Amino acid sequence: MANRINLPEIGLKRIVIVGAGFAGLRLSMELKGKGYQIVLIDKNNYHQFQPLYYQVAMSGLEPSSICFPIRRIFQNRKDVFFRVCEVLEVDTNKKQLQTSLGLVNYDYLVIATGAKNNYFGIENFEKFSLPLKSVSEALYIRNRILEDFELSLLESEPRERQKFLDIVIVGGGPTGVEIAGALAELRKHVLPKDYPELDLKEMDIYLIQSRSRILDAMSDKSSATALKNLTEFGVKVILNTRVLDILEDRVVLSNGSEIMTRKVIWAAGISASSIPGLNESCYHKSGRLSVNDNLQLESVNDVYAIGDVAYMTTTEGHPQVAPVALQQADFLAKLFINKIKAKETNSTGFKYMDKGSLATIGRNKAVAERGKLFLKGFPAWIMWLGVHIYFLIGVKNKIVVMFNWIWSYLFFDQGLRLLIKPKIKK
Amino acid sequence: MANRINLPEIGLKRIVIVGAGFAGLRLSMELKGKGYQIVLIDKNNYHQFQPLYYQVAMSGLEPSSICFPIRRIFQNRKDVFFRVCEVLEVDTNKKQLQTSLGLVNYDYLVIATGAKNNYFGIENFEKFSLPLKSVSEALYIRNRILEDFELSLLESEPRERQKFLDIVIVGGGPTGVEIAGALAELRKHVLPKDYPELDLKEMDIYLIQSRSRILDAMSDKSSATALKNLTEFGVKVILNTRVLDILEDRVVLSNGSEIMTRKVIWAAGISASSIPGLNESCYHKSGRLSVNDNLQLESVNDVYAIGDVAYMTTTEGHPQVAPVALQQADFLAKLFINKIKAKETNSTGFKYMDKGSLATIGRNKAVAERGKLFLKGFPAWIMWLGVHIYFLIGVKNKIVVMFNWIWSYLFFDQGLRLLIKPKIKK
Repeated sequence: MANRINLPEIGLKRIVIVGAGFAGLRLSMELKGKGYQIVLIDKNNYHQFQPLYYQVAMSGLEPSSICFPIRRIFQNRKDVFFRVCEVLEVDTNKKQLQTSLGLVNYDYLVIATGAKNNYFGIENFEKFSLPLKSVSEALYIRNRILEDFELSLLESEPRERQKFLDIVIVGGGPTGVEIAGALAELRKHVLPKDYPELDLKEMDIYLIQSRSRILDAMSDKSSATALKNLTEFGVKVILNTRVLDILEDRVVLSNGSEIMTRKVIWAAGISASSIPGLNESCYHKSGRLSVNDNLQLESVNDVYAIGDVAYMTTTEGHPQVAPVALQQADFLAKLFINKIKAKETNSTGFKYMDKGSLATIGRNKAVAERGKLFLKGFPAWIMWLGVHIYFLIGVKNKIVVMFNWIWSYLFFDQGLRLLIKPKIKK
Repeated sequence: MANRINLPEIGLKRIVIVGAGFAGLRLSMELKGKGYQIVLIDKNNYHQFQPLYYQVAMSGLEPSSICFPIRRIFQNRKDVFFRVCEVLEVDTNKKQLQTSLGLVNYDYLVIATGAKNNYFGIENFEKFSLPLKSVSEALYIRNRILEDFELSLLESEPRERQKFLDIVIVGGGPTGVEIAGALAELRKHVLPKDYPELDLKEMDIYLIQSRSRILDAMSDKSSATALKNLTEFGVKVILNTRVLDILEDRVVLSNGSEIMTRKVIWAAGISASSIPGLNESCYHKSGRLSVNDNLQLESVNDVYAIGDVAYMTTTEGHPQVAPVALQQADFLAKLFINKIKAKETNSTGFKYMDKGSLATIGRNKAVAERGKLFLKGFPAWIMWLGVHIYFLIGVKNKIVVMFNWIWSYLFFDQGLRLLIKPKIKK
């Protein structure tokens, strides 16, 4: 195979965008047909909708319902080139990327590589906990839960059985709260029917939060509502407690207790996931890429960063959430479009417009806030559903997800309790 | 873990059913609540609908749409016990099974283990061809096709590119014909839009049939119609030709030619898939288990076989198709129910009622026949759709499959071109 990715020169300036998450995909979509050659790079051939990973893990949705094939988005386009590969290294002097498929040169580079789990440098956390940063990982969690339920049937010793049944979630942010709520619903509505042989009272769901309240990026009201909802669902929320160690079959907590379990879901924070080859001066101490008001890296030429990986120094960074990623993509698209029109950018820099936050706990239960506005219960839950359907890519996906939600709502049934793995040929 | 599967004795005679395909699942469903303890064993926690595997492989349907969680079917039942495991050996004297989870004893054993691919003892056929006998294998084929399309973009040498683009299907039965038709539609409607960089004329689809006509279990009319349809679609059907060898990057045919390809889909025949531990006298020379009129093995006590694995000696075997499996399950269920009522079975033995056969080639194109009745084109195609929806298990699955079919029909789009693999933890 050639040393260089097979990409035609089409007489346009080339923007290489690394990562097809919220930020990278939106940018590519807005720049198509605007006079650039867009080269979009991702490890997968699909865009994945991160806010609903947890529903895939909980057998509520299929991966395909929250993923969208990237080639489908750029069908018939002659200016957008998509490649499935990994970036091995960037050379900002030569303005080229070394990828797993070969070299690619760029005129402009946009890094939109998102975030990965932060294990605070502790090996056992990474080794023994279950991450939820991709649909693949979500499927893995689903399979593990189903497998462990089957295995629990074989255990006549209650203490041993506990390892298979109990689940610990580390981190009391939106992801942790949503997983805990969904698990509690599974325990209440689905599992007792599926496993009449088991006493589901034996199954405990723990949510471990290091700080004094869950959803601590939201208001006190939201925290209190979520805590009340989860407690009513029977989730054991443990506050002000850190995880000291995770082993194959248990978790050690800072309050001195241990929980026997084979399943610890990691939702305790993220760190930036950059590409190799940039020198240290490009990074903020948080590990994110320092960018100026125009989302550009200052110490190298023609490199931009958007989304979770970017840290805008003038604002002390933005929260690592989807709306920031989308707004940054919009901003940068405009900047590139103005550049080609040779217009003075005349930009006052990127400004984030906070449209509020949402978290769901379970059926008819959610919290929503925007400034001083606060909603809970059914109205917040409907808003949560609406916002997620709105941002999901693909009309068919929207229909399928809505159908699944309505079905589960009416029949108290997560239909997808299937342990399917693609067969790997020896 | 205990040496014996943790199963309560509930004071009822125990029927162990191995395999939850058409035959085993139907039998379990008809025997629930009839006064037996049913122990159903399968390698997977779901039933899979074999007739639509090929649509999973062709990105038309999700695995979850044609699979159904077995526990869901027997929710809340106290007489049906389902276990996910493999049978390692049967001891017909002690009347017990050794499984991967431990020992299980039985009063009656029903073997419904189906069929596996027949590679005619040739190692390379098994090593280098792609099987399609499970949804996992279907997913694997889907992933391989998508991966190879991505890889083809990197190849500037046409002869090398051919390996990634061309696909060979071995076997001209219904499965082979259905795959070939679906691939041709993908090539016509979807791939040119997804890969504007490629010239899809380079992609060849071959269907290799050893005999003089395709669909040779059906009438001459059906064969001729299918051949005409496929040829119009641009599929290269090669008749009277056997595959001599399959290598990593090519297929050698008995007509002296070679086809360069990395993808050979195996649809050239099946053989029975029994369980270990039965002595030779139980087997017919075809490799299937010899059973009498009552579907019982004659040389051992209280063992029955139904579905593809069974060979009823008085009728020289039945075709290995779903309707036979379902009818045999119905027959055997009645026999067990009569037994418990201490009724004289008074059975005249199992009789297969042939309701005809169907095969689809593509949109609006199918063949159907029953006795002297023959249908083709749109009416046959609609019948094919209806029959498959009818036999699919689960109301939700029926809705989802219908929705997918309508969507693809209207928009010429197989939506599921996603290369998703559950992440495997190191």
